[in-house]
Amino acid sequence: MTSVAELDRATVGDLVFVVDQKRLAALAGCEASVAIVPAELAAAAHAEHGLPTIGVADPYLAIAAVLEKFYPLAPATHGVHAGAFVAETAVLGDGVVVAAGAVIDTGANVGDRTEVGAGTYVGPDVVIGADCLLHQNVTVYPGTTIGSRALLHAGAVIGADGFGFARAAEEHMKIPQVGGVRIGDDVEIGANTCVDRGTLSDTVVGSGTKIDNLVQIGHNCLIGSNCTICALCGLSGSTVLEDGVVMGGNVGTAGHQVIGAGSMVAAKSGVHGDVSAGSVIAGMPHLDVRVWRRVVGALAKLPELLRRVRRIERRLDEPHEE
Amino acid sequence: MTSVAELDRATVGDLVFVVDQKRLAALAGCEASVAIVPAELAAAAHAEHGLPTIGVADPYLAIAAVLEKFYPLAPATHGVHAGAFVAETAVLGDGVVVAAGAVIDTGANVGDRTEVGAGTYVGPDVVIGADCLLHQNVTVYPGTTIGSRALLHAGAVIGADGFGFARAAEEHMKIPQVGGVRIGDDVEIGANTCVDRGTLSDTVVGSGTKIDNLVQIGHNCLIGSNCTICALCGLSGSTVLEDGVVMGGNVGTAGHQVIGAGSMVAAKSGVHGDVSAGSVIAGMPHLDVRVWRRVVGALAKLPELLRRVRRIERRLDEPHEE
Amino acid sequence: MTSVAELDRATVGDLVFVVDQKRLAALAGCEASVAIVPAELAAAAHAEHGLPTIGVADPYLAIAAVLEKFYPLAPATHGVHAGAFVAETAVLGDGVVVAAGAVIDTGANVGDRTEVGAGTYVGPDVVIGADCLLHQNVTVYPGTTIGSRALLHAGAVIGADGFGFARAAEEHMKIPQVGGVRIGDDVEIGANTCVDRGTLSDTVVGSGTKIDNLVQIGHNCLIGSNCTICALCGLSGSTVLEDGVVMGGNVGTAGHQVIGAGSMVAAKSGVHGDVSAGSVIAGMPHLDVRVWRRVVGALAKLPELLRRVRRIERRLDEPHEE
Repeated sequence: MTSVAELDRATVGDLVFVVDQKRLAALAGCEASVAIVPAELAAAAHAEHGLPTIGVADPYLAIAAVLEKFYPLAPATHGVHAGAFVAETAVLGDGVVVAAGAVIDTGANVGDRTEVGAGTYVGPDVVIGADCLLHQNVTVYPGTTIGSRALLHAGAVIGADGFGFARAAEEHMKIPQVGGVRIGDDVEIGANTCVDRGTLSDTVVGSGTKIDNLVQIGHNCLIGSNCTICALCGLSGSTVLEDGVVMGGNVGTAGHQVIGAGSMVAAKSGVHGDVSAGSVIAGMPHLDVRVWRRVVGALAKLPELLRRVRRIERRLDEPHEE
Repeated sequence: MTSVAELDRATVGDLVFVVDQKRLAALAGCEASVAIVPAELAAAAHAEHGLPTIGVADPYLAIAAVLEKFYPLAPATHGVHAGAFVAETAVLGDGVVVAAGAVIDTGANVGDRTEVGAGTYVGPDVVIGADCLLHQNVTVYPGTTIGSRALLHAGAVIGADGFGFARAAEEHMKIPQVGGVRIGDDVEIGANTCVDRGTLSDTVVGSGTKIDNLVQIGHNCLIGSNCTICALCGLSGSTVLEDGVVMGGNVGTAGHQVIGAGSMVAAKSGVHGDVSAGSVIAGMPHLDVRVWRRVVGALAKLPELLRRVRRIERRLDEPHEE
Repeated sequence: MTSVAELDRATVGDLVFVVDQKRLAALAGCEASVAIVPAELAAAAHAEHGLPTIGVADPYLAIAAVLEKFYPLAPATHGVHAGAFVAETAVLGDGVVVAAGAVIDTGANVGDRTEVGAGTYVGPDVVIGADCLLHQNVTVYPGTTIGSRALLHAGAVIGADGFGFARAAEEHMKIPQVGGVRIGDDVEIGANTCVDRGTLSDTVVGSGTKIDNLVQIGHNCLIGSNCTICALCGLSGSTVLEDGVVMGGNVGTAGHQVIGAGSMVAAKSGVHGDVSAGSVIAGMPHLDVRVWRRVVGALAKLPELLRRVRRIERRLDEPHEE
């Protein structure tokens, strides 16, 4: 096997993936040398399309494992670039890589083998664990702690001030944001995503949580472990996500609320108030997804419904002519 | 008093805050040494929970004032870092701080005591007032003027081109964006927020206005004083916000419209057409908030309503059997 | 003529534009020396308001052409800044400009006269065409190819990992994202916009497509030519936009779907499933725009409709008294 390819462009020597029955037909005429398919389809796939198949329990897990073998991350080739700025009081672990234009400020502590990309800023006294990868132009404010194996994509901003003001007459008086940010192990944070610092205590992102691009995490949010938050979501201040919550894109939360463990929130929902564990919700404002589906199914009939009710009223108001 | 803490983790020596009656119960068992509470609750709080209380008119204002005393901003400790790039024709006021990797381009003028963070770019002829703080990796395009005491968070982009094209057959022809951006005093601009330059004249952000993270301000917008714009809002070109408008998160405006002074726009609303001063609106497309509340209250009943109307129709069509 | 001005602030020597009949009245008392107006209004405008007029077929095209003449882009004045970092194996074309703090990594190839702004990072082996302008603090990951005359605004991130994970029990296993990004000619990409790399093959942005600020383009999206995508849109993975699609702001797509050529999607829509060419859609979830308009027109009447149906039911349940 020389490489991994998509079904519609595979040639001899390629390994391909079929994730479900629906895509099985695409094996017809596919020139790939081997296909990984769901175990229950393996025999049929081989019989029908001829090429060797490997049956697996979960093709997505197999893809993850195979791609990691085929495309290992290139090890970074240098330590601290001459064009990087590392404060004298900063502490760098073994094998740390700091690219040109990166700045590691006073008292910061960067763990073994962690890589800091070009133009990335690590603020005073920030603590970053081992084997992290901070891409380019990331900003980490002081008061931030990051675990091990975290992956921060370009332009991410960790620890900017929460959005908190008191109103004095017409004007705003800034409420100083003196809490920090605590990020667990194995967290991924997307490009240009923002995680604000807490007001008094820390904003927290639990281990194993994955956050997509352009997401806003407000001050004092407490995000559990192994959550998934898709692009353009906005979590208002003090939103609590228990473990394993999954959010589609562009969801908003009202803040000061708890979204229970394992809940799923459909894209573009607006979540107000607490949500019990295991809920599946959708809509703005949110409803149980089954109710929401019936509502949106009925919506297109609303104009016609108005006419029907008018017709009934007219009929009832007419003098009986029977 | 040694520090300020949240109610649920305060210990001896801590000052805590209670913002409303609802949170008063949390004082039970709280080890804090003193509590700031709304004036009307001070006596009761002391009687019930024992600890010393200070009654204030607005606890949020008190928080703002107290935190500023407890956590004063550390004064920046150096002037222009050796790793900063300042053009010969740039003018820096007294006490200006420019961090490593920052670039101040030709003819730019930076006011007294203003701090420019690592990796931040200040374009040619930009004018920035006194006592501003530009965090890291901010980009300020030429044609921008910023007042005093402005706070720009990391990754903010001021003055990128407005999104304006003419259609020539199938293709786009770019309309050059030759206006600038004018930002008043005491403005806060969130992380990765974008304020586009005007087409011919300037995009304006009035004094005292606070903008959260990941907000898009389109070309030629005119934003008044003391407005509040939460995360992920998108103001289309030529939107006018009069003074004191408050916008929840992820609001969109259609552009070429006026939102009157002091209006409040609920999160995720889509605003089309002018909105009179003092309005409170919600929904996509927006409605008066009272109407909107009744509509969303009724929405979940829509599928059942369809069934009820069908039942009535059937009944009316049935031969009378009385 | 000395400059171009807006109608309400033009003085002697200025050229002004009138784009439609509605704005014609603004010529009254306007001190401009000449007005460009739609051809069919030119004679009337001159007769009524006295000032010289030039009739054109499309005022927006005329604006684009005139502004380009009045405000030519200043040619960049230097080559590679001493404070830029260019890898030895990188190849720069004639007249390339690299600003202070920019990093061009190993094996990257930058075309003639392309300008790379301060703090911008061009990753290993990236290929960029001629006459491009990359503003400040842009990040281009390895695996990216960009055509000629592309314009990338500050903070844009091209090629960050797509958001793909397999679930192993409670945990996420990252699916390596080993595809790249291919961007055509004459593409504009807004400030802080993110275009993710593909999983196996490339994410593609076709020539002439214009993308506004803070947009998220997910992995494996295939975007055609001459599309327009407004701010804060989020295209989920494997969304296909055929040529000439126009999207208002903050639209979301569900992913794995085709939006047909020339379709128009209203702001804040949520698009699920395929959309045939030439469609005009709106709403979340989306409807044909005509249906959607009737639905939102009817929505405000829903609470009253509930009451009307209750009245009918009560009436039908009452004993007949006629």
